Amino acid sequence: MARDLSGKHVAILVAPKGTEHVELAAPKAAVEGAGGRVSVVGIRRGEATTVRHDLEQGETIAVDAAFSDVSADDFDAVVIPGGTVGADRLRLDEDAVGFVRGFFEQGKPVAAICHGPWLLVEADVVRGRTLTSYPSVRTDIRNAGGTWVDREVQVDQGLVTSRKPDDLPAFTAKLVEEIAEGKHEAQARSV
Amino acid sequence: MARDLSGKHVAILVAPKGTEHVELAAPKAAVEGAGGRVSVVGIRRGEATTVRHDLEQGETIAVDAAFSDVSADDFDAVVIPGGTVGADRLRLDEDAVGFVRGFFEQGKPVAAICHGPWLLVEADVVRGRTLTSYPSVRTDIRNAGGTWVDREVQVDQGLVTSRKPDDLPAFTAKLVEEIAEGKHEAQARSV
Repeated sequence: MARDLSGKHVAILVAPKGTEHVELAAPKAAVEGAGGRVSVVGIRRGEATTVRHDLEQGETIAVDAAFSDVSADDFDAVVIPGGTVGADRLRLDEDAVGFVRGFFEQGKPVAAICHGPWLLVEADVVRGRTLTSYPSVRTDIRNAGGTWVDREVQVDQGLVTSRKPDDLPAFTAKLVEEIAEGKHEAQARSV
Repeated sequence: MARDLSGKHVAILVAPKGTEHVELAAPKAAVEGAGGRVSVVGIRRGEATTVRHDLEQGETIAVDAAFSDVSADDFDAVVIPGGTVGADRLRLDEDAVGFVRGFFEQGKPVAAICHGPWLLVEADVVRGRTLTSYPSVRTDIRNAGGTWVDREVQVDQGLVTSRKPDDLPAFTAKLVEEIAEGKHEAQARSV
C-alpha cells in the first residue's frame, strides 16, 4: 500500500471557532509525516480557535488560505474535521461547500470525520455513497441518499470517513493510503 | 387571541451540556408569565449546564424529570431550545426522540427554535410540514420532507418554529398562543 505523499498538497478545513482540535492536528501530522504538504483552509485567512470535546477551549491556529481564494484545482485532497459547532458553521458557508464539491467533481480523495460529513450533505455528494460519521449525523446522511455504516473507518472509492476522535489512527492510516493512490474516477459518481 | 395558560403544563427540553441558555429561559419565563407550569426535562434528573452563543459557559439549571420517566401524556406542550451541541446531543437520545414524537401523535403543540428542529428531523415528523430553523439545519429539514422558510416565526397547525435568539419575542408570543389554543388535530398529520 502506497504511503508516500511527496509532492501532494492537502487542504484541511477549519471553522473560525468550534473545529475539534485533534481531528485537525492528527490528519495534519499524518500527511506531513508521509512527506505531504498541508494548507489549513478556512472562511478567512488569519487565525482560528479550535475546541476540545466540543465545548472546551482548544488552541489558536493559523489559517493559510480562504475558501474564496482557492479551489480544488490547487490541491490533491481535502480533509474535513468535526467539532459540532465548527462543522455546523462550515456548512453555512457557500464557498466552503463549493470548495468541497470541487474535489468530488475532480475525483480527488476526500476524508471527513465526526460531524465533518454535514458538509458533504450540504454539498449534496453523499447520494449512492457508503459512509460513517458521528452517530447524530446518520439520519441526515440517510435522508441525503447515503448509506450509513457504524465502522471506525469506511473507504468508498476515495471517500474516507470515521466516527470520532477514537477512530483517528484508522482514519489517518486510510486517508494517507487513498491520497497516495491519487484520483478515483468513481469518486465523481455522486456529483 | 388566547393568552392564559392556567392549568397548562409545558415541558422544556435541556441537554446535559450545550443547550442555549436564553432559548430555554425566555420560553420558560413566557409560559410562567402566562400562568402555566414548566418542567425542565432532560436525559437525567439533576443538573444541566447551558451555554451562551454556543461555546461560552452558561448557567447550571435544575432538570426536573428524565425522558425515561415521563411521556407526552404528562404535558400539554413541549418547547425544544437550540444550542448546536445541545440539540445534537438530544437527537442521539432515543427516549428524547420518542418523547417529542408523542406530542405529534397526540396533536399537542410543539415549539422548536434554532437547532432544536434537528430533534424533529430525527423523530421523522417534518414530512409535509412548513417550518424554519437556524439556517444550517435547512438542508436536513428539506431532506426529511419539510418545507423550510426564512421567517422569524412560522406557525403550522400547532408547530411553532423560529431561527435564532433574536427571534425569541416573536417565538414566545406565538408559542403561548398555540399552547393556549390546545390540541391541533392536524399536528398529527406528519406522524
